[in-house]
Amino acid sequence: MLIDLEKAVNILKEKDDFLVISHANPDGDTLSSAYALCGALQRIGKRAKPFCSDEIPSKFDFMKEAFAVQDFEPKTLVAVDAADEALLGDFKEKYQNEILLCIDHHISNKDYAENTLLSTESAATAELMLDVIKALGAEVDKAIATCIYTGIATDTGCFKFSNTTPKTHIKAAEMMSYGVDFAVINYIMFDMKTKGRIKVEQEVVSKMQFFFENKCAVAVITKEMMDNAVDVDSDDYGGVSAIPRQIKGVEVGVTIKEKKEGIYKASMRSSKNIDVSALCQTFGGGGHKRAAGCTLKGTLEDVTRTVVDAIGNALKDANLID
Amino acid sequence: MLIDLEKAVNILKEKDDFLVISHANPDGDTLSSAYALCGALQRIGKRAKPFCSDEIPSKFDFMKEAFAVQDFEPKTLVAVDAADEALLGDFKEKYQNEILLCIDHHISNKDYAENTLLSTESAATAELMLDVIKALGAEVDKAIATCIYTGIATDTGCFKFSNTTPKTHIKAAEMMSYGVDFAVINYIMFDMKTKGRIKVEQEVVSKMQFFFENKCAVAVITKEMMDNAVDVDSDDYGGVSAIPRQIKGVEVGVTIKEKKEGIYKASMRSSKNIDVSALCQTFGGGGHKRAAGCTLKGTLEDVTRTVVDAIGNALKDANLID
Repeated sequence: MLIDLEKAVNILKEKDDFLVISHANPDGDTLSSAYALCGALQRIGKRAKPFCSDEIPSKFDFMKEAFAVQDFEPKTLVAVDAADEALLGDFKEKYQNEILLCIDHHISNKDYAENTLLSTESAATAELMLDVIKALGAEVDKAIATCIYTGIATDTGCFKFSNTTPKTHIKAAEMMSYGVDFAVINYIMFDMKTKGRIKVEQEVVSKMQFFFENKCAVAVITKEMMDNAVDVDSDDYGGVSAIPRQIKGVEVGVTIKEKKEGIYKASMRSSKNIDVSALCQTFGGGGHKRAAGCTLKGTLEDVTRTVVDAIGNALKDANLID
Repeated sequence: MLIDLEKAVNILKEKDDFLVISHANPDGDTLSSAYALCGALQRIGKRAKPFCSDEIPSKFDFMKEAFAVQDFEPKTLVAVDAADEALLGDFKEKYQNEILLCIDHHISNKDYAENTLLSTESAATAELMLDVIKALGAEVDKAIATCIYTGIATDTGCFKFSNTTPKTHIKAAEMMSYGVDFAVINYIMFDMKTKGRIKVEQEVVSKMQFFFENKCAVAVITKEMMDNAVDVDSDDYGGVSAIPRQIKGVEVGVTIKEKKEGIYKASMRSSKNIDVSALCQTFGGGGHKRAAGCTLKGTLEDVTRTVVDAIGNALKDANLID
């Protein structure tokens, strides 16, 4: 059920012993939202701890300062930045409980939780979370501001993407006033590359395929590539899906990554005209208009053809190709 | 002579027939500042045109909507975003006149103009220019807002770098409210890569040299590399100097580019601790603490050794190496 900010805050005030769950394959927004909410709940006298079914990349460790580690049996489950229960991973095996509240900004949110606070105008769930934290009456400090800033920055490509609004900038300015080390954060999130990462980029770019007058670019990452890579670790593949769309003239960029034998994750990015969320939904996936993903089964050739055909049809429908 | 905003605005109000000069090798900030100022002066009934001694990359063409092309003999010379008269190129050969007013944000500004409005706290000259335009009483519209936004975004790496302040974000939010196509601008400025650019990056990265426990990375671009490159044009080399510093652990990244035989431009970027502006000043150059440049003469080997030695000394002085 969709609820408003006031009702969501009342739920948080009434309940206790929170488990705040981030989506699997965690990014800066889902982690920052969870950590900031845990910190805020603790500051108003509640017990709260974050959970994520996947391992958390070490580059996000600095955000853990926002909350204290507390040992308790969770009673109230809150999901953050997760549009679909399936994205929450194996929390049910561990906690045998339903999600009481979901706080999210994805237009594809399935309203799976008992209560959902959804703000699709928020560039990041962290942007919405700042409103929640203020309405809770929890004091914002540098550690919480660091989380909120990081969530906003990572989900907007550092204010580059079309989801950014004037409010996004004003909230970032407010968070900076708490002394957030934003330049270091942005360096870690956007600019820093390991030598392994550079190798990954070189391999991905050198094998890129182009379709439909170069309006579609497809990068492929197979398990064989990953297994044979020297001095490359799994973190080095993060954010690779942004690369194909960056090439001049590309309207839809796709990265097809082999998850298990015969199972591929396709991550799509679009420039202006194609709604890749709708495209991915036809394959059971979802996301945002300009950034979405889906999982497909089959051989690499079949999966690639399926995805490329779908993009070709979308480009035709948008009159971008004949 | 350093002057305040009020005095600068009085000069602009008193004079007419302006030539607004950007620095050579123009970037988004110097062009946006010039175009926005020309537009604002025209809106209050003055004649104004921009000038740059170098060719202007076509990716900045969209900003020309801010002003009308006017044909007149300039009487008042204004320089924008240029710290040193030498950076203005061959304007003197053409206009035989002194710079009456310089509007700038570089800490290395040499106060060469008759009057200088300097705001080193401004992340971009465009940020300061917005204050000038408002104080002039010229109406801000989408075309001017587009310039100001672009100048701010390009000089802060899209709000990533340490020169960004809360005020920078608030001004960006204000400009966005005029309907600036910021996502398209940011795509063009930061994400879009030609196939030629990808080739350049691959070559630069594959030949990168590392010194001092990988704390210094040096990329080299020779005329031979540029002459032999296929499907690569000069724009594809823009911003290459950011690449060496992006590698994890690198404190100072340098790009050495051959200008003419025996003449090299060294562009330096630092992460946290080294003031590369001071470093470049020892070679007659300058810039910002975290991004600066200088020109050196000699063989590539000599120039590289000179630069690397200087960086080594700076790393030692900062206790970053033994």
